Amino acid sequence: MKQKTMTSLIFVAPGKIELTQKPIPSPGPTDALIRITTTTICGTDVHILKGEYPVRPGLTIGHEPVGTIEELGSAVTGYQVGQRVIAGAITPCGQCHSCFEGHHSQCGGKPMGGWRFGNTIDGAQAEFLLVPNAMANLALVPDQLSDEEVLMCPDIISTGFSGAESAKIKIGDMVAIFAQGPIGLCATAGAKLSGASLIIAVDSIEKRLKIAREFGADVTINFKEKDPVSTIMELTHGRGVDVAIEALGTENTFQSCMRVLKPGGTLSSLGVYSNDIHVPVSAFYAGLGDQKIITTLCPGGKERMRRLMDVISHKRVTLKPLVTHRFKLDDIVEAYDLFANQRDGVLKVAITP
Amino acid sequence: MKQKTMTSLIFVAPGKIELTQKPIPSPGPTDALIRITTTTICGTDVHILKGEYPVRPGLTIGHEPVGTIEELGSAVTGYQVGQRVIAGAITPCGQCHSCFEGHHSQCGGKPMGGWRFGNTIDGAQAEFLLVPNAMANLALVPDQLSDEEVLMCPDIISTGFSGAESAKIKIGDMVAIFAQGPIGLCATAGAKLSGASLIIAVDSIEKRLKIAREFGADVTINFKEKDPVSTIMELTHGRGVDVAIEALGTENTFQSCMRVLKPGGTLSSLGVYSNDIHVPVSAFYAGLGDQKIITTLCPGGKERMRRLMDVISHKRVTLKPLVTHRFKLDDIVEAYDLFANQRDGVLKVAITP
Amino acid sequence: MKQKTMTSLIFVAPGKIELTQKPIPSPGPTDALIRITTTTICGTDVHILKGEYPVRPGLTIGHEPVGTIEELGSAVTGYQVGQRVIAGAITPCGQCHSCFEGHHSQCGGKPMGGWRFGNTIDGAQAEFLLVPNAMANLALVPDQLSDEEVLMCPDIISTGFSGAESAKIKIGDMVAIFAQGPIGLCATAGAKLSGASLIIAVDSIEKRLKIAREFGADVTINFKEKDPVSTIMELTHGRGVDVAIEALGTENTFQSCMRVLKPGGTLSSLGVYSNDIHVPVSAFYAGLGDQKIITTLCPGGKERMRRLMDVISHKRVTLKPLVTHRFKLDDIVEAYDLFANQRDGVLKVAITP
Amino acid sequence: MKQKTMTSLIFVAPGKIELTQKPIPSPGPTDALIRITTTTICGTDVHILKGEYPVRPGLTIGHEPVGTIEELGSAVTGYQVGQRVIAGAITPCGQCHSCFEGHHSQCGGKPMGGWRFGNTIDGAQAEFLLVPNAMANLALVPDQLSDEEVLMCPDIISTGFSGAESAKIKIGDMVAIFAQGPIGLCATAGAKLSGASLIIAVDSIEKRLKIAREFGADVTINFKEKDPVSTIMELTHGRGVDVAIEALGTENTFQSCMRVLKPGGTLSSLGVYSNDIHVPVSAFYAGLGDQKIITTLCPGGKERMRRLMDVISHKRVTLKPLVTHRFKLDDIVEAYDLFANQRDGVLKVAITP
Repeated sequence: MKQKTMTSLIFVAPGKIELTQKPIPSPGPTDALIRITTTTICGTDVHILKGEYPVRPGLTIGHEPVGTIEELGSAVTGYQVGQRVIAGAITPCGQCHSCFEGHHSQCGGKPMGGWRFGNTIDGAQAEFLLVPNAMANLALVPDQLSDEEVLMCPDIISTGFSGAESAKIKIGDMVAIFAQGPIGLCATAGAKLSGASLIIAVDSIEKRLKIAREFGADVTINFKEKDPVSTIMELTHGRGVDVAIEALGTENTFQSCMRVLKPGGTLSSLGVYSNDIHVPVSAFYAGLGDQKIITTLCPGGKERMRRLMDVISHKRVTLKPLVTHRFKLDDIVEAYDLFANQRDGVLKVAITP
Repeated sequence: MKQKTMTSLIFVAPGKIELTQKPIPSPGPTDALIRITTTTICGTDVHILKGEYPVRPGLTIGHEPVGTIEELGSAVTGYQVGQRVIAGAITPCGQCHSCFEGHHSQCGGKPMGGWRFGNTIDGAQAEFLLVPNAMANLALVPDQLSDEEVLMCPDIISTGFSGAESAKIKIGDMVAIFAQGPIGLCATAGAKLSGASLIIAVDSIEKRLKIAREFGADVTINFKEKDPVSTIMELTHGRGVDVAIEALGTENTFQSCMRVLKPGGTLSSLGVYSNDIHVPVSAFYAGLGDQKIITTLCPGGKERMRRLMDVISHKRVTLKPLVTHRFKLDDIVEAYDLFANQRDGVLKVAITP
Repeated sequence: MKQKTMTSLIFVAPGKIELTQKPIPSPGPTDALIRITTTTICGTDVHILKGEYPVRPGLTIGHEPVGTIEELGSAVTGYQVGQRVIAGAITPCGQCHSCFEGHHSQCGGKPMGGWRFGNTIDGAQAEFLLVPNAMANLALVPDQLSDEEVLMCPDIISTGFSGAESAKIKIGDMVAIFAQGPIGLCATAGAKLSGASLIIAVDSIEKRLKIAREFGADVTINFKEKDPVSTIMELTHGRGVDVAIEALGTENTFQSCMRVLKPGGTLSSLGVYSNDIHVPVSAFYAGLGDQKIITTLCPGGKERMRRLMDVISHKRVTLKPLVTHRFKLDDIVEAYDLFANQRDGVLKVAITP
Repeated sequence: MKQKTMTSLIFVAPGKIELTQKPIPSPGPTDALIRITTTTICGTDVHILKGEYPVRPGLTIGHEPVGTIEELGSAVTGYQVGQRVIAGAITPCGQCHSCFEGHHSQCGGKPMGGWRFGNTIDGAQAEFLLVPNAMANLALVPDQLSDEEVLMCPDIISTGFSGAESAKIKIGDMVAIFAQGPIGLCATAGAKLSGASLIIAVDSIEKRLKIAREFGADVTINFKEKDPVSTIMELTHGRGVDVAIEALGTENTFQSCMRVLKPGGTLSSLGVYSNDIHVPVSAFYAGLGDQKIITTLCPGGKERMRRLMDVISHKRVTLKPLVTHRFKLDDIVEAYDLFANQRDGVLKVAITP
């Protein structure tokens, strides 16, 4: 008998998530149903768990799917059941006004409108996942890549790299990245890939700084030992960096980014902010410093996924060190506990149904 | 006998400026000495007068020169004494690291480093003016243009247009401009020149809103009568504008710009801020709205001046309405009093020695 | 009884087109069926008629539709039967790799892949038209605009403006446009909208040059009376233009564009070339002139159409003079005869079923 | 007694160069005199020798200087005699209209106007070199870098990297580079630094293809063994490359670049062409393929040199393998003979006075 329900991790109330059974959904004409083979937990999911980012109770969370096509909508062409695929955390339709303007992450003209999985529709921490606009979002995984090798593409790599891309890092740029969690580490890798000649990574966890150096940082600063702003100004001989990437989402790191930026520099912000930000007029050079502040939400869509997997296939980056722990879907609540409390040197966990 | 001293308006102390006599300077090898024929007063000069922007006592202020070449430095080629010229408010050297990166206004790698006149060296509210890096900065005025027709090029037009240019306004963009002083009016004209299809100008002075409509605004909003944020959201059918231009320098207008911006939109900031800015996390879409915030300091250099004068020669904009009052240099203190207090419908004053 | 067949203009063989009856098609899940209210003939259609651009015999030609929604595919949401719409000549899917890269006109990764109407699927010179990927392509026509006012949006305006846009015309640029047919005239209008300070239009038909001046040209050159290359070099004081737009598709105009380009300038090519092009090494500055040559195929998609109609709504351009003749669909063969032979001062014809 | 003359290599007539003595020049106010410590020979110098690129008889040739400051012009500040410096092959003034537009290589508005050394003024294959606009062009060499490590910065690296930069290579792009001489090899390194995920290098010399793989090529094609166009189309699964870089200057490689370009792709041309180019209409997709063709002349100026040396300091590229032979200046005619005839596996020679 065909399986009719699936295990899903749902948000119940602030501080509470739980595994439950839900009916396996049927794809509409432009959807696809994916059987999840590997997924992971994101820092944003922890915000959801804590109630800091509101979603409706009962929603399945998670937005980083690797899986196989289980069923295709009637209007979906060009794919076959059984193919191994990923979809981005952001699933743009490709057809609305915002998508045509290139603002795919703001799909539908709504802020963050392209972020659907685990936000406005059921997400990936389940046995099955309904992917909207399947033709825009399903990207075939090359045979030579394992699930874990592509697991970071839907969000972590796409977001991290975009920090470098949105800042238009050029060959010979000096770049500082504040925070070296998974996103920050990928921003470091993205800066390296973009030709930065001096990459400075800031964090307080030595293990992360070590990976930062493996991912491309020339210099790492443990902010518990040294003041990052003055250290960066020294390292750049008082010049400041061309690009500062914020990869945490706090006022403090945002301000530090501003303070290390050269006149004419770019602040590329990736963090998810929970609170207002105070911009000091001095760091803002009274509005006369020809500065740019650019925020980016994880680029999605199948072409983005194809490119990121191609970068991995050709070994431009090796991101395996990011997966530090592995759990079964049935044990995901335990995985959240480990991940949310950053115990045991965890960076990313792989979850398999 | 050759004139040896010149009348100059100097900053004395906060709240106090005065006319004095200074020796006429001699040009160094790469300088030029200009005999001022027309100049004007800028809002920034009023900040200086009030002590809100600090300069050293005794400095001649003013940064908007029209004049004739009186004497050329020994290494200056390609110009002749007697030619009518302007120089931008910003006088980049063209040869430092920042200039080669295209950040001419941040010349020398220092914030606002390209702004020298009336800031770090003697300025234009005098009978004569020493122009540094003359070959980079002297722009010949076409015969058919009067002094008053080009008087706005050194700062007002260059700054105002740059609000549209830095935002990369495209054909069919919707644009809102907050504040319609001289800079804001020129930003409105710049938005029109850049192909914006809907231009919304905000101010509280009806006379300025009237000029805004002449300069290209489709809709004007008197913020004393209507809330600009909700009105703009209605006018754009809830979409928000592609570009919001801040042309005042206050937290309030900055925040309003953020609140009318579509996801993926650009805030182009021209104002000179005296205080810190509070960025509300809601208007910042938690850092996930693919927004850009770009600040611009008045582009300078002779090519910029040439282009702006060409725009005027070909009647793409008519900026004569901006000059509302005329004074002799000897009466400039009186002109400041009128201008600083915005009496008598003043927009810009022309000062002639 | 419901109408089952429709009048359609089909390509039969080189030199031969004819009106025929075809079954009215049924929309697939993502299509829409449009009842054509106004359409037109493009220069490209004449190439098809002459056999210079090959299409399969029996194909309905035409790619510039204005109409009303007759029927919507089962998966199409956000539209209602009876709404008045246009669709671009190019109908990108928005969901393929090329579309996600922003190359919508090369949809599917095939050269010109986005051009379907009257090229790879039945076109608009018929009573009804099937629009693929309806959600990506149907753009609602504002009530205040007539069919004729928006008739140029699907191709002529979109292509013409793109000549200016692809060249990234900046405020103060000098621009030359070679050929002032409908596309060239719209390129002239696009250059004006983009802030060019000097616009030079070249053609040999005085009536077209007159419209060019109305659309924004500062200077027009009748190439039968004056050599355009030397005249343009004089007009720019030997400097050359920042941007040269090719709007015909011949080697001669292409070479002329190269010869009037300043070092560092951009050649923006809109023409459809039937033959190879010889690039003289002298005009190419031996490959060392920092030149750009950019080709553009008519941008499509509903957001593009929305923007162009917004430009028209706000009277940034008045393109009514382009429609010089009107025909019934039943008389379209006659209209082709007039248009292909450029008789009677024809610019564009409006065709109504 | 102070040295008054210097050994210089001059162009005499097509096919003839010779060493001669010239007076050591005195710097004008904005010049600097450099004592050459290391220089090299460029492919362009061979064109000059052969008479394929005309210069005036008696001109000292060469444009790749490493040296120490011997004397500074009276108006030059910020440098000291004895400092070790390089200057780019292109020495822009930074102050003309073209420089302000960012077209530094077209300095003065003349094609290739920024290329002065060994073209319009005496060049670097001599004991001393006069550097014009010294403040714009002298770049200090970091102590830790040897002459040979920076010798490729003035031309080879700057040109090669610019092939990737002008094409705006993005993370995940597929790139083909035609010809792997010194410029092509640096273009390969530049593509790697820019994040290309698949880099395909084409040449016929196995030794060069081996270095290409060291510099970043994933795949190399020996065009004597395989047809590069069809091989590249296979490697990209029929898609074509995002960017094709021409690094030779022949019609054949130019056409091959066009034929491997995806619709929407960019041809970045670095070669110096001696002959006209025939552009096949098929490869040009009739002008409708949204293609870009971009030519670039070696970017110069001190900021460019600083950046390139920073890239080398931080070991982003190791270009030592390029210097295969070393000669004394007195033996430079012999070095030309070796280099021009590509004997003995020569890539680049280092010349020391």
